[in-house]
Amino acid sequence: MPRRSPLSCLLSALLLAAPAAAAPPPKIVITETAAFDATSVPAYTGDYADVYAYLDAHSAQNLAQLQRWVRQPSISAQNKGVKEMAELLRADLQGLGFRDTALVPTSGHPGVYGYYDAGAEHTLVVYMMYDVQPIEPTGWKVDAFKGELVDEPGLGKVLMARGATNQKGPQRAFLNALEAMIKVRGKPPVNLIVLAEGEEELGSPHYPEVVAKYEAQLRKADGVFFPMNTQGRDGQASMFLGVKGILYFELEARGNDKTGGSQKSEVHGSMAATLDSPTWRLVQALSTLTTADGEIAVPGYRDAIRPPNAEEQRLYNGLIGKREQDAAKTLQVLGASRWKNGRSVREAVASELFDTTLNIDGLVAGYTGEGVKTILPHRAVAKVDSRLVPNQTPEQALALIRKQLDAQGFDDIEVRQLSGYPPAQTSVDAPLSRAALGTYRKYGLTPTIAPRIAGSAPYYVFTQTLGLPMISGGLGHGSGAHAPNEYMVVQPQADSKIASLAQAERFYVDLLYALSDALKQAPAKGK
Amino acid sequence: MPRRSPLSCLLSALLLAAPAAAAPPPKIVITETAAFDATSVPAYTGDYADVYAYLDAHSAQNLAQLQRWVRQPSISAQNKGVKEMAELLRADLQGLGFRDTALVPTSGHPGVYGYYDAGAEHTLVVYMMYDVQPIEPTGWKVDAFKGELVDEPGLGKVLMARGATNQKGPQRAFLNALEAMIKVRGKPPVNLIVLAEGEEELGSPHYPEVVAKYEAQLRKADGVFFPMNTQGRDGQASMFLGVKGILYFELEARGNDKTGGSQKSEVHGSMAATLDSPTWRLVQALSTLTTADGEIAVPGYRDAIRPPNAEEQRLYNGLIGKREQDAAKTLQVLGASRWKNGRSVREAVASELFDTTLNIDGLVAGYTGEGVKTILPHRAVAKVDSRLVPNQTPEQALALIRKQLDAQGFDDIEVRQLSGYPPAQTSVDAPLSRAALGTYRKYGLTPTIAPRIAGSAPYYVFTQTLGLPMISGGLGHGSGAHAPNEYMVVQPQADSKIASLAQAERFYVDLLYALSDALKQAPAKGK
Repeated sequence: MPRRSPLSCLLSALLLAAPAAAAPPPKIVITETAAFDATSVPAYTGDYADVYAYLDAHSAQNLAQLQRWVRQPSISAQNKGVKEMAELLRADLQGLGFRDTALVPTSGHPGVYGYYDAGAEHTLVVYMMYDVQPIEPTGWKVDAFKGELVDEPGLGKVLMARGATNQKGPQRAFLNALEAMIKVRGKPPVNLIVLAEGEEELGSPHYPEVVAKYEAQLRKADGVFFPMNTQGRDGQASMFLGVKGILYFELEARGNDKTGGSQKSEVHGSMAATLDSPTWRLVQALSTLTTADGEIAVPGYRDAIRPPNAEEQRLYNGLIGKREQDAAKTLQVLGASRWKNGRSVREAVASELFDTTLNIDGLVAGYTGEGVKTILPHRAVAKVDSRLVPNQTPEQALALIRKQLDAQGFDDIEVRQLSGYPPAQTSVDAPLSRAALGTYRKYGLTPTIAPRIAGSAPYYVFTQTLGLPMISGGLGHGSGAHAPNEYMVVQPQADSKIASLAQAERFYVDLLYALSDALKQAPAKGK
Repeated sequence: MPRRSPLSCLLSALLLAAPAAAAPPPKIVITETAAFDATSVPAYTGDYADVYAYLDAHSAQNLAQLQRWVRQPSISAQNKGVKEMAELLRADLQGLGFRDTALVPTSGHPGVYGYYDAGAEHTLVVYMMYDVQPIEPTGWKVDAFKGELVDEPGLGKVLMARGATNQKGPQRAFLNALEAMIKVRGKPPVNLIVLAEGEEELGSPHYPEVVAKYEAQLRKADGVFFPMNTQGRDGQASMFLGVKGILYFELEARGNDKTGGSQKSEVHGSMAATLDSPTWRLVQALSTLTTADGEIAVPGYRDAIRPPNAEEQRLYNGLIGKREQDAAKTLQVLGASRWKNGRSVREAVASELFDTTLNIDGLVAGYTGEGVKTILPHRAVAKVDSRLVPNQTPEQALALIRKQLDAQGFDDIEVRQLSGYPPAQTSVDAPLSRAALGTYRKYGLTPTIAPRIAGSAPYYVFTQTLGLPMISGGLGHGSGAHAPNEYMVVQPQADSKIASLAQAERFYVDLLYALSDALKQAPAKGK
């Protein structure tokens, strides 16, 4: 072993102290070679021509239903129209023949409950969200709540409005399909529990209260469904079997006795010579959470994560070809010229499906306007979210953040959790999953199937708390969720592979019957 | 020399890599033992009883003049009433008998010029600022532009309004004094050039344009004066002989080809798995500029600073006793429980007078509202200011920041200078300084004298560009500049040592004569 001089030791010390070079992306090893083959699932053979005909005959009324929904604002973050939309949904359910309906008070915005008794042995829960994102101050080319139809080049006629695709459009399309079933066939093939929340866009902080209130009824259900536009611009359908969990928290530095700074108010900027700055504290504290290039640097943060299992690896192998094919286009749409830290498409998709994140959603201190104002702010806040994959939990993740801050000397930084829940997942081999796949197959579609999306939703209340399989799906295409000019296609142009509104509704008819058949594979729990 | 094992080497490397422990405050060595003794300057002996009597007889009208000024909003940051205030000031000068007056167009808000020809051999420039800070949304107990008189416990009757003390009150009080001189004695003892700007609160970005326009006239002047309330709540007067310079810049990280991220818009927060975050880049870049506890860590940043000279050290010795005496109270007013990183009062005052700063004035990225919104912002901005002491320059300071960012691998961070100018200073032994001191002495006051204040003003255009001595001063007390409920005392309560408005005006009469006498020590430059 070579003897190292103090000088070389110092040099290596300095090298270590220098900022980390581009950290390698996390290694996610795919050892399976087989790919999940969606074409192996037989096409659904059900046919409900009488119901389809009803839908076709009522297409104008059905479109008007979507317009009625998007014209009712329901911005949860600003408490704008939320109560009215909750009542509108409840009344619609009642009008459709739901036996029991109720607004469900919570500590936040109310939930909406509805029970449709079809006299069936099995029960399907339909998850809904009735709230929408705030309106962006610029960029909208129509009134976001006017429910206007717009001719979009390359797409056809679209409903352009806040909530058009996220999530009022597909949800009301599903209810249109349900209405057609009831009108033509008297009732749906399963009992239905609609359980909606008005705080999805806030991170679903009180949805567990809604679920808890109806836990007894929910425990009798056999599965959960969420209506969704899943087609891309090219008509390609996609399915996802799960969601990531989330931890959302704020880090706040403010003046205090230990590390100084004003505890009362901002002071003149020149006082930086004599007073401590909570903003520098926050910056320094945050900087200990990632490497120089933004990779997570919290010790042990990934330790809990289980490697992708065999099913997940097969699903990955099944979708990666399409993702590689679309990669350049996808980057272009995102306005980016590379994947994170130069990851390959394969690595980026592996991160998207199997890795956790640590993202700064917002950062604010002091004067944030244009031009010059010199103040020394007395507080600084960062909003941070972390997407959680199996087997992370919000509690563990937050504890690791706290531990790292403390270890680096930042115990003066306050950490406040605003939201947190674990991930959720249903197997591709679950009867509900196969039923959905079979319905796509009926329409000649082979969806790409992801074990989970990169985003989060509180599906754990179904999959984990209640132990129910959960599936989402539907035909139709929309875009612009959380952005200006959100839309859902209602009448695609001639050469399009996108479903029209009437076709999307027809799909929901088939899907509800197919899911109902699948539920019958589970032993009946009683009504 | 003990042989170190690779393990001990690694340990020391890790120790080095760990965040720095509390950095010691910069060492500023005071070797002088003598203190500047303000009582060594003889009291001014001039007496202008006829002018004082005029002021006393017109006290109601004079107060109304101040009210008229503060009732005209002039918020430079919001372009509210700026033009109107400029014209109001110009018209006032014309009304007083200024021979030439003009609004001075600039790339920003206009300056105001006025020349009063007293037929004298010497000329004094009066610097003024006619703009004010924006109104804070909460905290005002009166309408900020109504010019209300309020009885303040412990003070007496005050004029409470935006601009009352910063800087309309003392400036109009000075013009009241000038008016009395003209009415009683026909003219002031010197020619006067008023050169006002409407962008002081924006960092004086275009004041050099105003100066350049009148450079020929200004070069014939012999000194510069700025009227100011200098008394504290306890009546203690203070003088400062200079200001720090400033460098104000923005650091911006945005999506780019080299370090990735969206170049177009914010994206969904879950995309942190696959896209780079400009916000983390900004945080990491910022973190290389200070130690963990907020001390400047930019290599060489203090190298240009010259140590305090003998005069500055004597001034420091002359004021430190009072500052130590007031320290606990000062901290209490600031809402802080310690000086920066545990500095002693002596160290803190040394930093205030002789050290540079690096302060985050503002930090903004993504969602900054209440509650939860998950986005991955495509840009993040920090607003930073650095106060400059002799011999720093904005250019050198900015270059060192840029160099550090580049050296640490952050050449993707954009650095945008918004403002920058060098410090300014006049010797305590300059005739103008001694004249001002003598005037305080006439009123039995011994001001604390600082070689400079911690704040900045563009006085370099006078001291450096034009080579003129510059002094500011005045009696009177006000507070709340840049804060709600700004005020200036107009009629102090019975036991107060604060000057009334009439006394402050009387002081300006004496001061103008005393300054005029001092200017006569300089060779006449001609009109």
